Amino acid sequence: MGKFITIGERISVTAPSINRAFQERNAEPILTRAKQQIDAGAVYIDVNIGPAENDGEELMKWAVELLQGEFDNVPLALDTANKKAIEAGISVYNRSKGKPIVNSADADARIEYVDLAAANDAIVIALCNGAGIAGNNDERMEYLQILLERGLEHGMDDQDLWFDPLFVVVKGMQDKQMQILEFIKMISDMGLNSTGGLSNNSNGAPKTLRPIMDSALVAMCMMQGLTSAIVNPNDLRLMETIKTCDVIKGNTLYADSYLEL
Amino acid sequence: MGKFITIGERISVTAPSINRAFQERNAEPILTRAKQQIDAGAVYIDVNIGPAENDGEELMKWAVELLQGEFDNVPLALDTANKKAIEAGISVYNRSKGKPIVNSADADARIEYVDLAAANDAIVIALCNGAGIAGNNDERMEYLQILLERGLEHGMDDQDLWFDPLFVVVKGMQDKQMQILEFIKMISDMGLNSTGGLSNNSNGAPKTLRPIMDSALVAMCMMQGLTSAIVNPNDLRLMETIKTCDVIKGNTLYADSYLEL
Repeated sequence: MGKFITIGERISVTAPSINRAFQERNAEPILTRAKQQIDAGAVYIDVNIGPAENDGEELMKWAVELLQGEFDNVPLALDTANKKAIEAGISVYNRSKGKPIVNSADADARIEYVDLAAANDAIVIALCNGAGIAGNNDERMEYLQILLERGLEHGMDDQDLWFDPLFVVVKGMQDKQMQILEFIKMISDMGLNSTGGLSNNSNGAPKTLRPIMDSALVAMCMMQGLTSAIVNPNDLRLMETIKTCDVIKGNTLYADSYLEL
Repeated sequence: MGKFITIGERISVTAPSINRAFQERNAEPILTRAKQQIDAGAVYIDVNIGPAENDGEELMKWAVELLQGEFDNVPLALDTANKKAIEAGISVYNRSKGKPIVNSADADARIEYVDLAAANDAIVIALCNGAGIAGNNDERMEYLQILLERGLEHGMDDQDLWFDPLFVVVKGMQDKQMQILEFIKMISDMGLNSTGGLSNNSNGAPKTLRPIMDSALVAMCMMQGLTSAIVNPNDLRLMETIKTCDVIKGNTLYADSYLEL
């Protein structure tokens, strides 16, 4: 088993300061947040440029070269609804620290993101989701099969499809939490990789509760075989928990200093 | 599924101040620690009077009446190598808040603690351990079967045997952690209850690490179906994690204030 792979989520247009920095091609706020995430132990950095309908290709290239140039070819997840922008980003991407991740495909309108990943020897985050939100694990598994077959048809290694069960919010969907956890185990039992935005679980909860909820959930997920997550790596409690679960699972050799490694 | 049951471990002769308080029949230090644990959310309080070879019967009666008298018949785990002291404690024990727990039986020299629990309609903590320490899950399961059969032969409800997989230390037995977690799942899949001193995992680790290790492990254990643990309820991070896992598992209804409940 490999170590858990964190994908830092903080370079995103959903943050007003980052949105502005993208528009103005202002490197500083982007590099600052990237450094914070890398220093905290993020393996991949997600680069969410939003829809980016007009200048997406040029913007993604700029962002990829900026981040990889500054941080020793840090591996990136390219995150936008603009397919051409992802292709443009990959065209300048350096693979020495890991394949690019295409974020994201689903089993409906975004199925072609699988093809895009296959054509570019990239990893793809595959949401187990179709025209509607999956209501149960049978439906999630149908969507997974559609995505997996699509990838294999296009010559992908099955390890390059990272299946996302779609985490749901405790406030309102408390009774679905165990279903998601069971689905992660199903993915793991198939020998496949998984990922997802697990902080969705604590949406709407008081700010002080969220790191507590996220870290309890990530430990349960890692027990079930989750191999990656899209997270805020500057949530100290969360990262401590991930590193500890890697020790318990034997993915990291214990040392008194393991939290600092 | 019921809520996770914490057994507070801090009333123990292993703490010098408590050992002295037991010898001197000095109520105050014992009541102070018991209150700290109950306030922090402990369900059961363990009362470890040690070997107590001379005055065990009188001492355990004194402790049971003291604690139950002060704290509204708080349920107790009676913990001593002196069998007569456990029987004496049960003779004055009030069951209105829960059956007494006999701590503990094993599949070897302490098998008669199962009979003692059966004869007194008590719960028993059953260590999955025999003459030697179990080396793998086949051996743990053999010990479990011996203990389970003994209980059933003596008319016990199988839910009153709480099987302890015996947690092992990460420093030195890192490669056994997943085995223990898998064994917890085996117990759970049999529909049986489980417990154990899970802080054993972090023995010898730096003091600042221990709550981090214990809380990551308890979340993984609860995912596997652990139903109880012997813990320090004054470890805030641990208790927050337990309460959160109970929310994720649907054992507690979510409310923004669930940590305070």
